Amino acid sequence: MRHFLLELEELQQKLLEMGGLVESSIRESVLTLVERRPRRAENVWSYETRINRLEIEIDELATRLLALQQPIAGDLRFITAAIKINTDLERMGDLAVNIAQRAQDLIEKPPLQIFVDIPKLALLSQEMVRKSLDAFVLRDAELARSVLLSDDEVDRLRTSIYEELIAAMQKDPAMIVQGVDLILISRHLERIADHATNIAEDTLFLVRGVDVRHHAESSV
Amino acid sequence: MRHFLLELEELQQKLLEMGGLVESSIRESVLTLVERRPRRAENVWSYETRINRLEIEIDELATRLLALQQPIAGDLRFITAAIKINTDLERMGDLAVNIAQRAQDLIEKPPLQIFVDIPKLALLSQEMVRKSLDAFVLRDAELARSVLLSDDEVDRLRTSIYEELIAAMQKDPAMIVQGVDLILISRHLERIADHATNIAEDTLFLVRGVDVRHHAESSV
Repeated sequence: MRHFLLELEELQQKLLEMGGLVESSIRESVLTLVERRPRRAENVWSYETRINRLEIEIDELATRLLALQQPIAGDLRFITAAIKINTDLERMGDLAVNIAQRAQDLIEKPPLQIFVDIPKLALLSQEMVRKSLDAFVLRDAELARSVLLSDDEVDRLRTSIYEELIAAMQKDPAMIVQGVDLILISRHLERIADHATNIAEDTLFLVRGVDVRHHAESSV
Repeated sequence: MRHFLLELEELQQKLLEMGGLVESSIRESVLTLVERRPRRAENVWSYETRINRLEIEIDELATRLLALQQPIAGDLRFITAAIKINTDLERMGDLAVNIAQRAQDLIEKPPLQIFVDIPKLALLSQEMVRKSLDAFVLRDAELARSVLLSDDEVDRLRTSIYEELIAAMQKDPAMIVQGVDLILISRHLERIADHATNIAEDTLFLVRGVDVRHHAESSV
């Protein structure tokens, strides 16, 4: 039993470590773009390697816990949630890689002379990743719920970025490639936020036993 | 034991049913665009409701199997893979919804006077969904491997679609909104194909015990 608790603790620690790497990866991918420094992207490649290794380790640990400890009730639900969350974190890592690749292309072209608030969208996404994982590990329903609310802010922000970029491209068609790339980057960030929302929903299900997936927010 | 096998069979059937709904959903979302018929999108909304219900049912069934039957070895790996695949299928359903929404916007605007092969990309994605799930249920490594190969074709196709659309927008900046929307739709289809690739990788891991995630394709 003692051994089981230690392994559960290890599972949590690995998920938190992976979450930290995902946050760093988002930050570096966006700084590649903002600071126009292609070398920044190399940090993202190295984080990805560690994220991918952790994904496999977490899956193995979770499967071992299921096989050897045959957990029931709350522990079982916690471990199956960890398997799902692991998948979400790995996808976020991939999305940060996509952002960094696109950023490397973008900074070789003349910059767009308007400011779109991609850094704010990136900070918001990072915060959602951190909060959703903290909520999971602490089994904190209120914190999980705050992540669901942030997702509305993400949607507003990506819509305004989209509209600003469309207007900029229409005004100066020489900027179409840059505009499209920035729209795609903002969509990657939005998708990272979606994955954080999934983690928050899994957490609410774990803590309250209520399935909030596919329900109106008012029911949360 | 007999009961356990029946429940495993039920789990497979539900995953196949969900896969069928995802395929239909992709088809209808793209037909909304191609046939310029907004009513088509309503089929996508109704598929989504059923997909979301199935996601919850599959999670519950998998968790019940883990709790009551305490499976080991191959069965345990099959059930944990089912939990991951369930997540992939649900995301694909969401992506089809995104395509349908964007298609509805698009068909209210004048059409782009060039042909980009989004229908082909859609067919390829649907085929990958079907093959990856068949491979999982039949534990067929060769079929799973063919899905990984299709993913390269998807990447080529979406790159050519991107380049054609950028050129079309540069030629006629009045078409920027339509061009961006079509690029986003092609990215949604690419992401559906990515999820099918995940299912194929999980299947290879299940069948061969070899983790092909995050390895060069030559090692598959």
